[in-house]
Amino acid sequence: MNETTGLSCPIPFGRYPNILLAHGGGGKLTGELLEKIFIPAFSNPALDARHDSAVFDLKGARLAFTTDSYVVSPLFFPGGDIGSLAVYGTVNDLAMAGARPLWLSAAFILEEGLPVNTLWIVAQSMKRAAEEVGALIVTGDTKVVDKGKGDSLFVNTAGIGVIEHSLDIGPQSVRKGDLILLNGDIGRHGIAVMAQREGLEFETGIQSDSAPLWDLVSLLLSKGIRIHCLRDLTRGGLAGALNEIAQAGQVRIALDESSIPVREDVQGACEILGLDPLYVANEGRLVAIVDPGDGKRALDLMRSHPLVSEAKIIGNVTEDSPLVTMKSKIHGSRIVDMPAGEQLPRIC
Amino acid sequence: MNETTGLSCPIPFGRYPNILLAHGGGGKLTGELLEKIFIPAFSNPALDARHDSAVFDLKGARLAFTTDSYVVSPLFFPGGDIGSLAVYGTVNDLAMAGARPLWLSAAFILEEGLPVNTLWIVAQSMKRAAEEVGALIVTGDTKVVDKGKGDSLFVNTAGIGVIEHSLDIGPQSVRKGDLILLNGDIGRHGIAVMAQREGLEFETGIQSDSAPLWDLVSLLLSKGIRIHCLRDLTRGGLAGALNEIAQAGQVRIALDESSIPVREDVQGACEILGLDPLYVANEGRLVAIVDPGDGKRALDLMRSHPLVSEAKIIGNVTEDSPLVTMKSKIHGSRIVDMPAGEQLPRIC
Repeated sequence: MNETTGLSCPIPFGRYPNILLAHGGGGKLTGELLEKIFIPAFSNPALDARHDSAVFDLKGARLAFTTDSYVVSPLFFPGGDIGSLAVYGTVNDLAMAGARPLWLSAAFILEEGLPVNTLWIVAQSMKRAAEEVGALIVTGDTKVVDKGKGDSLFVNTAGIGVIEHSLDIGPQSVRKGDLILLNGDIGRHGIAVMAQREGLEFETGIQSDSAPLWDLVSLLLSKGIRIHCLRDLTRGGLAGALNEIAQAGQVRIALDESSIPVREDVQGACEILGLDPLYVANEGRLVAIVDPGDGKRALDLMRSHPLVSEAKIIGNVTEDSPLVTMKSKIHGSRIVDMPAGEQLPRIC
Repeated sequence: MNETTGLSCPIPFGRYPNILLAHGGGGKLTGELLEKIFIPAFSNPALDARHDSAVFDLKGARLAFTTDSYVVSPLFFPGGDIGSLAVYGTVNDLAMAGARPLWLSAAFILEEGLPVNTLWIVAQSMKRAAEEVGALIVTGDTKVVDKGKGDSLFVNTAGIGVIEHSLDIGPQSVRKGDLILLNGDIGRHGIAVMAQREGLEFETGIQSDSAPLWDLVSLLLSKGIRIHCLRDLTRGGLAGALNEIAQAGQVRIALDESSIPVREDVQGACEILGLDPLYVANEGRLVAIVDPGDGKRALDLMRSHPLVSEAKIIGNVTEDSPLVTMKSKIHGSRIVDMPAGEQLPRIC
């Protein structure tokens, strides 16, 4: 029961009555907050679709709308910073609905004592990132909290995009036989942030893969690829994203481990740190689930895009029951579960 | 210079190179961040209008878009909580563009250790508030930060509204002769939060005025009132809001102190605390600047609304130079300046 209000939730929270870092990890506990708190409170068709963006109609236009807060620590990391991350992240969530990003908001929660110069650098980074994707930052807000009640700088971005095609992109459109494409090697963002935060040095200097994905999605759409679902791989990594799709679309996804690109230095860092690259966050990677007849052409298109180094078909949709499995390089097949705890907190 | 990036802003930040609580107070220092950092970085017509919401066209529809983060402390206060505040605040910013609120986002930054039950209570409050105004919460996000790196719970809401009239509501439309209407007594929200936070007891139990304003605005619009500008009185209070309008619209606003309602208990609390009610935050108050020919009718309409207790015409627009003055109850006329410091941090 809450002391001030005297209220208490009728649904028990089980083993975890208090918020853990894992509640923000994009895995099982994040899902529990959604199931037990947010869906019951806010339920409506756009929210219940549980896609990266809400999609709705307005006077004949189809719009997508999304939001994310960014609490990455440190603010600056190899290959990016909280500013570009906040712009790309929201742009990518719009792109995952097949929406062209148009307008963004930017809201800052600053901790007292933050050098104003740091805010300037972050704003400049947001400016460049927004220009790169052709979106405008049109509204914003700044709040300040007392020293010790925040952590230098948090950013929230929300975004509005417009859907200019007639596909219904989302887990509900995934079908048996569909092919699953991935646009590059996984795990770099999480490892880059982790290394910077912990002062670890990896020989090759792993850079975040942070990048905007709308241009790639736009290419696939413009060439008529029958895209059934898109999802960017952020918190929870590839495993988290595919489990979400499997659950929401009630489909079984079968992966082939040997087709999933992981750079040698990232694999090495993961082994040292005891991490599984399948669960490590990315910020410029997506899976595209496409009609089997378009798989080869989609792959060629992806590979023709300047931001894509190593696109692959990594698996397919095999049946109508919610599960993700993987044919491993050595051991036969195993279940790839939803992430349970939090491997790397605050990577976005 | 920033150590990690080696970058530094070309514009000097003057006396305050580090963020103060006053940078979030809605006064001069908040304005400086806008002038020196955000406008130069993001400049575009929607942002440069410096209105509560950005307004733009999409395929024949006129949309408004806004965002605010909420860091109020404590989370629960007499007359409201962070959840309803976050919904009403964003709805009110849309309403100030004359936009009907349709879709909201809700993003949470939780501090590790927060009782999950507290999040549930806040979500329930947001649910009720959204239902009350007829808006849907369609997308969201949850992040968790380590204990000591946040303050229990921050909320960001962004909102999309649709503009169904042809008025151009904003500081640019304010003209000499316009009348300034206020929809009720000022200063209650700030005092209610402050009292709760500091454990002060006022005999009468001052409640926040937190309330949604769209219904009132909708009433004025539906009756054809020629509204030139609307602004809700949040951080910075009545003085802050009117100074913003005076600056943005390049007009002089003359107030009559005797017409501005302040409850006796609020006046008393302000005197004890050394505050000026003109600068204390409200969350359910607006000024409507209307064509002089519509002033009386607008006042009658306001007074007919169930949420309005004490509407008044508090002044008028007198000339084309940016200034706010007030005829005081006893001393002749004085300048009402933009708030300079921060009287009451974290009231929204």
